Amino acid sequence: MDINTLFLLVGGILALLATFGLFLKQAGGVRKKNVTSAFALFPLTWIFAVLGYFLVGFFISYGYHFFQSATDLNAAQGYQGLRFFFLASLACLIPAILTSALAERAKFPAMVIASTLLVTFIYPLLEGTLWGNLSWINGRTGILQSWLGLTDFHDWGGAVSIQMLAGFAALGGVLVLGPRLERYSKDGKPLEFVPHSPLLYSVGNWLVALALIGIAFSRYAGDLSKATALVPMNILLGIVGGGLAMFLRPKENWHIRQNSILAGAIAVLAGADVFHPLAALVVGLLGGALFLFSYRLITEKIHLDDALGVWPLHGLVGAWGGIACGIAGYTFLGGLGGVNFLSQLVGTIVAALVATAAGLAIFYALRVAGALRISHDEERLGLDIVALKMEHIAEETKKK
Amino acid sequence: MDINTLFLLVGGILALLATFGLFLKQAGGVRKKNVTSAFALFPLTWIFAVLGYFLVGFFISYGYHFFQSATDLNAAQGYQGLRFFFLASLACLIPAILTSALAERAKFPAMVIASTLLVTFIYPLLEGTLWGNLSWINGRTGILQSWLGLTDFHDWGGAVSIQMLAGFAALGGVLVLGPRLERYSKDGKPLEFVPHSPLLYSVGNWLVALALIGIAFSRYAGDLSKATALVPMNILLGIVGGGLAMFLRPKENWHIRQNSILAGAIAVLAGADVFHPLAALVVGLLGGALFLFSYRLITEKIHLDDALGVWPLHGLVGAWGGIACGIAGYTFLGGLGGVNFLSQLVGTIVAALVATAAGLAIFYALRVAGALRISHDEERLGLDIVALKMEHIAEETKKK
Amino acid sequence: MDINTLFLLVGGILALLATFGLFLKQAGGVRKKNVTSAFALFPLTWIFAVLGYFLVGFFISYGYHFFQSATDLNAAQGYQGLRFFFLASLACLIPAILTSALAERAKFPAMVIASTLLVTFIYPLLEGTLWGNLSWINGRTGILQSWLGLTDFHDWGGAVSIQMLAGFAALGGVLVLGPRLERYSKDGKPLEFVPHSPLLYSVGNWLVALALIGIAFSRYAGDLSKATALVPMNILLGIVGGGLAMFLRPKENWHIRQNSILAGAIAVLAGADVFHPLAALVVGLLGGALFLFSYRLITEKIHLDDALGVWPLHGLVGAWGGIACGIAGYTFLGGLGGVNFLSQLVGTIVAALVATAAGLAIFYALRVAGALRISHDEERLGLDIVALKMEHIAEETKKK
Repeated sequence: MDINTLFLLVGGILALLATFGLFLKQAGGVRKKNVTSAFALFPLTWIFAVLGYFLVGFFISYGYHFFQSATDLNAAQGYQGLRFFFLASLACLIPAILTSALAERAKFPAMVIASTLLVTFIYPLLEGTLWGNLSWINGRTGILQSWLGLTDFHDWGGAVSIQMLAGFAALGGVLVLGPRLERYSKDGKPLEFVPHSPLLYSVGNWLVALALIGIAFSRYAGDLSKATALVPMNILLGIVGGGLAMFLRPKENWHIRQNSILAGAIAVLAGADVFHPLAALVVGLLGGALFLFSYRLITEKIHLDDALGVWPLHGLVGAWGGIACGIAGYTFLGGLGGVNFLSQLVGTIVAALVATAAGLAIFYALRVAGALRISHDEERLGLDIVALKMEHIAEETKKK
Repeated sequence: MDINTLFLLVGGILALLATFGLFLKQAGGVRKKNVTSAFALFPLTWIFAVLGYFLVGFFISYGYHFFQSATDLNAAQGYQGLRFFFLASLACLIPAILTSALAERAKFPAMVIASTLLVTFIYPLLEGTLWGNLSWINGRTGILQSWLGLTDFHDWGGAVSIQMLAGFAALGGVLVLGPRLERYSKDGKPLEFVPHSPLLYSVGNWLVALALIGIAFSRYAGDLSKATALVPMNILLGIVGGGLAMFLRPKENWHIRQNSILAGAIAVLAGADVFHPLAALVVGLLGGALFLFSYRLITEKIHLDDALGVWPLHGLVGAWGGIACGIAGYTFLGGLGGVNFLSQLVGTIVAALVATAAGLAIFYALRVAGALRISHDEERLGLDIVALKMEHIAEETKKK
Repeated sequence: MDINTLFLLVGGILALLATFGLFLKQAGGVRKKNVTSAFALFPLTWIFAVLGYFLVGFFISYGYHFFQSATDLNAAQGYQGLRFFFLASLACLIPAILTSALAERAKFPAMVIASTLLVTFIYPLLEGTLWGNLSWINGRTGILQSWLGLTDFHDWGGAVSIQMLAGFAALGGVLVLGPRLERYSKDGKPLEFVPHSPLLYSVGNWLVALALIGIAFSRYAGDLSKATALVPMNILLGIVGGGLAMFLRPKENWHIRQNSILAGAIAVLAGADVFHPLAALVVGLLGGALFLFSYRLITEKIHLDDALGVWPLHGLVGAWGGIACGIAGYTFLGGLGGVNFLSQLVGTIVAALVATAAGLAIFYALRVAGALRISHDEERLGLDIVALKMEHIAEETKKK
């Protein structure tokens, strides 16, 4: 075992930290009656997602399975196993993103089932079949693009294959599920829900942005000699750019505004290995702005109740990242080159369509089965009581 | 210095993170009046435990001491020093586990003294003398087993030598100390105490489970060429298995139920380097179930007031891990082999007896000295006021 | 890319973790009306500080800039870029320390401007020009000392160039800004403000102490073959020593007392690579004591309102660390030698003067421009409402 391994190990742990951050953010962003539930979804979705990826998903993506002797698994010091560890940890960002959109009114089993299906089938199919085997570790290659005669798709840190996938699948869920009770007044004005803890909300958000620096860097583990300092620098400057976008919307609520920092990080993920740092600054700035304007638009005009603004943040900004990689990656914009605008555009659009379709199909099926949404009475009580049976604790808290 | 070093460094930091998680869990699990105290025990026990291990404990285990010139300590780039750093960080899980059992009614000095004695003497004696010098880093070797003509004892990630040791020592403490006031009604029914913050409780718990992945992996630092991906995979699947056990007790309180996830991680620690991942899944599942059933049993039938369920979680499940290593480690169950059921059984039982005896002796001596338990009035006031003199803050909080 | 890189990456991430801890501590230490603001200063100061260090600061220190093609930046696998990543992350401790002193009454733009100027100009000038190019990575070399015919200045982990710089700049700010409203009664008695969350305060504090272990270790990244276990051991024992100092002031408020642990870590940073561990224990103990006595002195006698005790903790103890390196580093005190008391004294005093002068100048200019302090009414409302416009959330919270 060599240093590549340690990169995978550090990367996997940072991926878990990013997921941690997303669930802390969710726990901070919901109302008090749903706080413990929000975090409980971390272990609950995780155990099934990891199991599904172990039994099925990793095989779909990489053609390697674990139904062989421990001695064989241990061969070559188990490189496949470590890659599984890293990629499984990374894939668990998907449940974290998805459940944040559906928070406070979806049934627990519905969120667990949808997360598991996405991680077990849709994510591996998207990265493995559509774009070609081993696509993700190589950062490039794509059946679809090759077929169209284009350069291979490039998505270094998973802006499209993780962030955008989860964001657009969540959009499907939000459309089928509908808004939370009293989220919009009778004349259609959005009534902002006050986050349970704006502190926890922003701590979680910032933690994700910082963890992404290391996660994307770990992607070099396959071939350390290719590692470059551009990746951490570009993510740093993407965050800076996204943060600057905050000043374009000075009157927005703070807990919404500060998401622009994470938007900056997500925007540069796909091209983090090919951008010039100054280009990353601009891509991050545009990503931050895209989030802030689209969040307000969908909330006020389209009346989508996406509890933590997941579709604009991970979906739209992830898509922007995929496309931006095919713009700022060109050498005449200071990049290292090797990217192709049309490839990125086609790949991003196809992935968005697949993710949305998957989200719509899964959540529609759950709704038809009556398994999607808790009752209005239950929603008023909150999931801590409904899903976790915390009546006892809720009563004690009331007494104080 | 080479990469082995970095493994030790990363491992030590993750061990500190696991300890961090245990104290966050404790802070979340106690009642409001004891919250700051619960976390204060982290630095307080830590400074004395590290000092004791530095001055005495490490010498007992490895025959190496630090009373030599800095130049000598620096020789071979201080490998012994780094090993000390890693093992000291790891040993500080013991105070974290111990104090969680005794929370809310033991005196601060009592908890500090007991922790220091365990880390300074009992833990090094157990791992060093009983099982042979250098046992822990090598993962195997044992004077006792050799004497009985058995294969050497195997405990990869410290299920027995850390988790179980602390859990059974805590049992001794719980027996001597007795339950908290009003923990049982007059007719012997347990009255559940509401955790101060179920969120913090579960955040801490989950953090420990995740940190264990990296800690156990760091155990390869002695010889990197032996490193294998089985370790992180098996801990991942142990957690999954433990998590599944949760569904066996759907009516249990959520904050208790979700401990099964950590139980799954602890159950696979001893054999993480020899199990097949599917075996780890089963061992974790049984570990989770063992915790859930034994916790309810000791609370309702034996009336043990173990504040955070430490004996069932770290003690019993740790013991199960030691024994399971001698079952699922065999090749006919998919393992890598090289384990021996009788060795594991003998080693685990002897360690459990030693730990319990040490716990009983230390806490009995403290009780005889009148240094063990705060008065009933103090217990009603809470340790934040009694041990940390936070009257001023408590008053301000009341006013709000 | 080789293992040195990974050290820089791990070090940078741990530096971010330490900064994280400082802001959690600040959020825990202020009153409820300023909680979200305290943490919001993390991303806000960070984006400008990183930008300034990227555009200007790194060039001042190391003569390397990023206005070159991505291909050139990528040469030698971007070692300069990774060093930038690590040092930028480390430099962001400065805003965290600075804002902690000025909390609850300084304007947001004032804190952002001061932080940016310090990170962009003062810090690079101090480490680069005054002490010579590349001083920091080499850990030694100093124009000033050479000119005086002394040995080069030694500051391994940034006790002087980071901790003390920020602490003394903060002193300038505290002097110009004046105390918070009602911090002192009319007859000059300090009225302690109750921290919003003593738990969060101590969690943050402890997190910083632990993260410093890894940060300082990462300083070896330039030349791994020089790495030594003395660094983590000495920081461990510095923390132990600092923690023991706590027992010298048993009646001090707990949230103040437990700072002595962090003081122990800071005290040994400068000489962590040359001390004997037992000397580190003593240096840490004296650092802890220095903090505890000076904090009480400045609060009661000098009436400095340093919101989180930053000047005593990071400033005075950092200075003690710089000087202690020139005492305990000598071989006759068990150290590795190669240090010089006069060099350390001169370097520390000059750095303290530069930092204080910079702090005074920046904050005086901000006061003259009317940009320094919020109005009394605003201070009573709190920065969550004044700076973050959280009226809506504040109202909701009141209703509950």
